[in-house]
Amino acid sequence: MNSIKAFGASAETSPLAATTIERRADTDRDVRIDILFCGVCHSDLHQARNEWRDFMPTQYPCVPGHEIVGRVSSVGSAVTKFKKGDLAAVGCMVDSCGECAACKANEEMYCVKQATFTYNSPDPHTGGHTLGGYSEAIVVDEKFALKVPKNLDLAGVAPLLCAGITTYSPLRNWKVGPGQKVGIVGLGGLGHMAVKFAKAFGAEVVLFTTSPNKTEDALRLGASQVVLSKDPEQMAAHTGTFDFILDAVSADHDVNAYINLLKKDGTMCLVGAPEKPLAVASFALIFGRKRLSGSAIGGTEETQEMLDFCGKHGITSDIEIIPIQKINEAYDRLVKSDVKYRFVIDMASLAAA
Amino acid sequence: MNSIKAFGASAETSPLAATTIERRADTDRDVRIDILFCGVCHSDLHQARNEWRDFMPTQYPCVPGHEIVGRVSSVGSAVTKFKKGDLAAVGCMVDSCGECAACKANEEMYCVKQATFTYNSPDPHTGGHTLGGYSEAIVVDEKFALKVPKNLDLAGVAPLLCAGITTYSPLRNWKVGPGQKVGIVGLGGLGHMAVKFAKAFGAEVVLFTTSPNKTEDALRLGASQVVLSKDPEQMAAHTGTFDFILDAVSADHDVNAYINLLKKDGTMCLVGAPEKPLAVASFALIFGRKRLSGSAIGGTEETQEMLDFCGKHGITSDIEIIPIQKINEAYDRLVKSDVKYRFVIDMASLAAA
Repeated sequence: MNSIKAFGASAETSPLAATTIERRADTDRDVRIDILFCGVCHSDLHQARNEWRDFMPTQYPCVPGHEIVGRVSSVGSAVTKFKKGDLAAVGCMVDSCGECAACKANEEMYCVKQATFTYNSPDPHTGGHTLGGYSEAIVVDEKFALKVPKNLDLAGVAPLLCAGITTYSPLRNWKVGPGQKVGIVGLGGLGHMAVKFAKAFGAEVVLFTTSPNKTEDALRLGASQVVLSKDPEQMAAHTGTFDFILDAVSADHDVNAYINLLKKDGTMCLVGAPEKPLAVASFALIFGRKRLSGSAIGGTEETQEMLDFCGKHGITSDIEIIPIQKINEAYDRLVKSDVKYRFVIDMASLAAA
Repeated sequence: MNSIKAFGASAETSPLAATTIERRADTDRDVRIDILFCGVCHSDLHQARNEWRDFMPTQYPCVPGHEIVGRVSSVGSAVTKFKKGDLAAVGCMVDSCGECAACKANEEMYCVKQATFTYNSPDPHTGGHTLGGYSEAIVVDEKFALKVPKNLDLAGVAPLLCAGITTYSPLRNWKVGPGQKVGIVGLGGLGHMAVKFAKAFGAEVVLFTTSPNKTEDALRLGASQVVLSKDPEQMAAHTGTFDFILDAVSADHDVNAYINLLKKDGTMCLVGAPEKPLAVASFALIFGRKRLSGSAIGGTEETQEMLDFCGKHGITSDIEIIPIQKINEAYDRLVKSDVKYRFVIDMASLAAA
């Protein structure tokens, strides 16, 4: 075991603070990564504050962080993908059963035994719970370490590991591409990546937002049109015209208003997860044989594909870099959606913590 | 115009009673059908009693009936599909725009200008509203008249025109077949047809019901297993195992309990339409990339395919024949789900009305 510095919450009402955690001794399949940057996902905040107590209660101490980019400091004897000094990334998962149909399809996020998530999952190695990327280093089976394109800004890569793959995966799964009209609901951490990817895949992209002041950014990021979702006339003008809508909003909202904008056989996919059940009008689905779906992150293989795609197309996240000492302030701003479009922690700051 | 006998409601609180209605003079594309049998759909009751007042208010007089089987008494000069004396059937639609993408795909039920339904739709021919099959005869464009296999019991054919196609169409659309485990929720008019079709398509069929006394019938109709949906243990035993679930329940119920039974990428399709919005847990869809969808009846081409399939496989609806004079009593029994599994009116009884 190795003691390292980290930043975490000791209880649900405690702000995040410097702490010391243990990482396991490396196995022969492990990669040890010195963390350079870690993105700040809204899930980090939910978990640190135990806001998902009903279905995913937080184990303390809680060290969040699952958008991890760093450099390999050592590799086990059986490791083939990495050598010391390589760039490497870790996303939302660090292990899975490896044997179920989902794992065999490299869709470990749907592992029937549930994947080991990067933080707050039972950790079969230590017997405790997993601790995330707000820390000096992480030790992970090489299957769950991803290769990072060398041409990209590393801080901007970090959010690709959650916000990126969470939007890339459904857009690929539903074969979004040229000739299609695609809606993205919400321009936040996920939404801004969805706009970039949908545009890169060749679709016509329409952004839905409640904030008129996001129009300029949306157009810059790749949308061809911005619709103010509170304006019934603007919404009605798009009735029955969308092939696919990706809904990245986690606040309570009316999904039927968007289902009505789908073409026959169109799909609306949720990647934001409102806490309260959604009120879905059966008639909205029945007339037009429309589909409401959801999608969770993406598997290791597709995450690597996404990183390679980003390398080839020069895609990174739009970010605001913070030192770890500003994390509590960043959380407060996150609650107000006051970030364009993802906070990323420069982990060098942890040395001074 | 031609005056004929019919049975209908003069107001939402009136029981159905004998009346006289007008049918249009036949155009050269029209088929006139003397009605032999008409099935009784729950929609008939909703419409007659104006229970859909918020989105489909009833025009009175209301003559319900859209599961129509009869014999052609005359054809227009341009009619090619039928000749006098042929059997013919009419389902839920009697016209559509013919020009939109849905109509061109022979999916007239999703016509962007909305199909002309068999009753309670604006009637472009008369300027009034359409009047359904609880009547002596109907006049319809030959495109919306279907050919009836000669080997089937005619009374048992009638419900195929709505209950049949409404279940056949989604099972075909989602390619239900051998090697698949398919759930049918509810054993009523729709559900009992869904069990027959899913079985005929080669799937393993599991019926979900709240009524233990439906077990024997479900097994006879083709289910290999019956699950009491109120029993959490029985439900849990099927978690993550279904390729497709067809939900034929129109009462309020918990759809998340069924979504949880789907495999990764599985679809649950609604053909019953609960009045209140469904409470859908976003996490139920997200973990497993599951889909909630809906489906409405079926197009003319697929309805003909379904009738031909039924002819080939000897499939009809399980019915209880009534004279038209018993229709109000039948409605009261329908509200209590007291029918196995569809009432069909012997329209010869109308002569005495």
